[in-house]
Amino acid sequence: MSNTNIIVGQSGGPTSVINSSLAGVFKTARDHGCKKIYGMRNGIEGLLKESYVDISDYIKSNLDIELLKRTPASFLGTCRCKLPTQENSPETYEKIFEILKKLEIGYFFYIGGNDSMDTIAKLSAYGKEFDSDIRFIGIPKTIDNDLAATDHTPGYGSAAKYIATAMKEIICDAKTYSTDSITIVEIMGRNAGWLTAASALSRSEDCSGPDLIYLPEKVFDLDDFVQRIKELKKDNKVVTVAISEGVKNASGRYICEVNKKSIITDSFGHKLLGGTAMYLSDYLTDCTGIKTRGIVFSTLQRCASHLVSSCDISEAFMAGADAVVAALNGENGKMVIFKRISNNPYSIITELCDVQKVANEEKRVPDEWIINNGTYVSKEFEDYARPLIIGELSPFMVDGLPRHLFI
Amino acid sequence: MSNTNIIVGQSGGPTSVINSSLAGVFKTARDHGCKKIYGMRNGIEGLLKESYVDISDYIKSNLDIELLKRTPASFLGTCRCKLPTQENSPETYEKIFEILKKLEIGYFFYIGGNDSMDTIAKLSAYGKEFDSDIRFIGIPKTIDNDLAATDHTPGYGSAAKYIATAMKEIICDAKTYSTDSITIVEIMGRNAGWLTAASALSRSEDCSGPDLIYLPEKVFDLDDFVQRIKELKKDNKVVTVAISEGVKNASGRYICEVNKKSIITDSFGHKLLGGTAMYLSDYLTDCTGIKTRGIVFSTLQRCASHLVSSCDISEAFMAGADAVVAALNGENGKMVIFKRISNNPYSIITELCDVQKVANEEKRVPDEWIINNGTYVSKEFEDYARPLIIGELSPFMVDGLPRHLFI
Repeated sequence: MSNTNIIVGQSGGPTSVINSSLAGVFKTARDHGCKKIYGMRNGIEGLLKESYVDISDYIKSNLDIELLKRTPASFLGTCRCKLPTQENSPETYEKIFEILKKLEIGYFFYIGGNDSMDTIAKLSAYGKEFDSDIRFIGIPKTIDNDLAATDHTPGYGSAAKYIATAMKEIICDAKTYSTDSITIVEIMGRNAGWLTAASALSRSEDCSGPDLIYLPEKVFDLDDFVQRIKELKKDNKVVTVAISEGVKNASGRYICEVNKKSIITDSFGHKLLGGTAMYLSDYLTDCTGIKTRGIVFSTLQRCASHLVSSCDISEAFMAGADAVVAALNGENGKMVIFKRISNNPYSIITELCDVQKVANEEKRVPDEWIINNGTYVSKEFEDYARPLIIGELSPFMVDGLPRHLFI
Repeated sequence: MSNTNIIVGQSGGPTSVINSSLAGVFKTARDHGCKKIYGMRNGIEGLLKESYVDISDYIKSNLDIELLKRTPASFLGTCRCKLPTQENSPETYEKIFEILKKLEIGYFFYIGGNDSMDTIAKLSAYGKEFDSDIRFIGIPKTIDNDLAATDHTPGYGSAAKYIATAMKEIICDAKTYSTDSITIVEIMGRNAGWLTAASALSRSEDCSGPDLIYLPEKVFDLDDFVQRIKELKKDNKVVTVAISEGVKNASGRYICEVNKKSIITDSFGHKLLGGTAMYLSDYLTDCTGIKTRGIVFSTLQRCASHLVSSCDISEAFMAGADAVVAALNGENGKMVIFKRISNNPYSIITELCDVQKVANEEKRVPDEWIINNGTYVSKEFEDYARPLIIGELSPFMVDGLPRHLFI
């Protein structure tokens, strides 16, 4: 590897551990004697503008590597860019390969979700066609856990840990009052309910967990929902609901958009489009007369690096490291995947899969794991997800706050 | 103290460290040989219904005390109850003192904010009038930091640490994209801006902090706000604003209520009252065409016990402990306060003040600490607040999540 350079990019929505994968790539490449380790600024979008850095300018020590692992969001910057097809824009591919040639790149790594794997698929296919020596390897990343072929995805475990922790704390807070209340917690995931399902992990010896959990995999019936809430309220002062931002009604409309027309009727003519939690909490307050609070985790669930899962951090690092090893072994057009060997004790290994199998695919929560008429998740889900949230990684605290690395 | 019992209650909105004060009361009373340590369930409201527990049934070891310190919200339950005056309801006071007599209470502790101190003021006045031997002592608590007489209030430091940490992470997340964005973060505090001001603590070597900070102490001018955002956008891809939920316009109306009438016009007739962040983010999206996200910290800022300040935890414990010592020394109708001896190195002592001086008073951010025409806070604020967020207390993690104590 000593005579070749590598380049690595980050793409799509950030996670709390995406930089741990970057750290894995950097450290492994450095330890293998790689000459230059470039980082694309803002993924392939930046590369096309020849915007990149020499990562060694920022990571000068093993302490910096540890700091990088503790930095949320994408250190190199990210993009939401899907490459055009080769037919539609051959010049895009020519330009990318020209830049890679100029930088003497032998190995190309891309950390991202399904759109990013589409990029790896297209570039490796183009490279093969034109007998390029460059190896293209994908490193999985997404809090949504919706990548095909892999047991789970780096980023999910930490988001799940944040969601379950915050859910415990919210339930603890709600139960402190003697008054009746309903809390609706809105969780990310437009099409796949993995994150919302993670709220079930809050159920433990010291916490009842949410009473209802709604995933986007199932149609959301507003009347049935209200009925269940009213039923629950008979025996419970406090009711808590975890709901995916992506739930839709039988007509396929997002719940938060059901009354969109009327929501626009502000006197300035400004849109007042609330989210799912906001809509449902207003609806329930009116239906039941009970104080209902909507809480939206928003970006906190993907950037709360002060509360990562050490399992997730380690696996994200390993995915980056193993991608480098795979590329050195001559692999191309592949993505690193996790294969679970055992649940108890938890054990995984990494393997490689053809990136075509991952690109543009979406893995949803299995039907049989969604129980109680689409209002909860099963023990199988918990057995699957619990190991992924185990362990902590202390942030480096300076002046009372976590320290991050930045460009 | 060996022949007398004590009772302690928690009141008002919970904090991440209110149970540390309870732990301080419990441990100190126990160590002084107190016979029984009762806890009111849901404050004075519960006491009036004779709802209480023997805390020793739940706290059996020093490990339990540590677990109690790490449990968010009010372990004993809370209430929002203001005692009627003695003139209006003498029977309320007769009933309370009858219950206290039955339980052989010699010392009464109440952990709370200004309404709770009003309770202490009224009960101690009534007790003095009727020659009661019971000592009534208040222990300060509120994330809002708006209690008079004390340098600061237990609960504030941890909420401030959460806000500053989350703000850092949110800014880090926003800057990862190459696209333009505006983020409006809504923070608690209807009348006092201490919590919103804490967002300024995120400004550090590795973070620019929010660009604008709006406290409820100043009138909010929507046009000026939009103008400033547009000005900032000229040089910044990413703009972040911290705003108090309680900001009002020149007419004294909450910003989130400005268009209330039109917000109600949903087709079901349901109210769709968004918060300040939601309103402003919709407004800015329309004004500027730039993607604007509203983030509301909601209850997380007062219950995120996984990220407390150890300074705050220790001081909350000390406030509880010193309340017991004061009561044993014969004090009555007092609240424990903090007096700052030095900023650097940070040092405080506790003192006592007449609870009448605290009840129903509200301490706001000093005018001279609000700078840049009401859009930021000064270095003096940072010097004041920074010491309060220093240090961490590791949660007790079980199965990947913080463990809490519960009744």
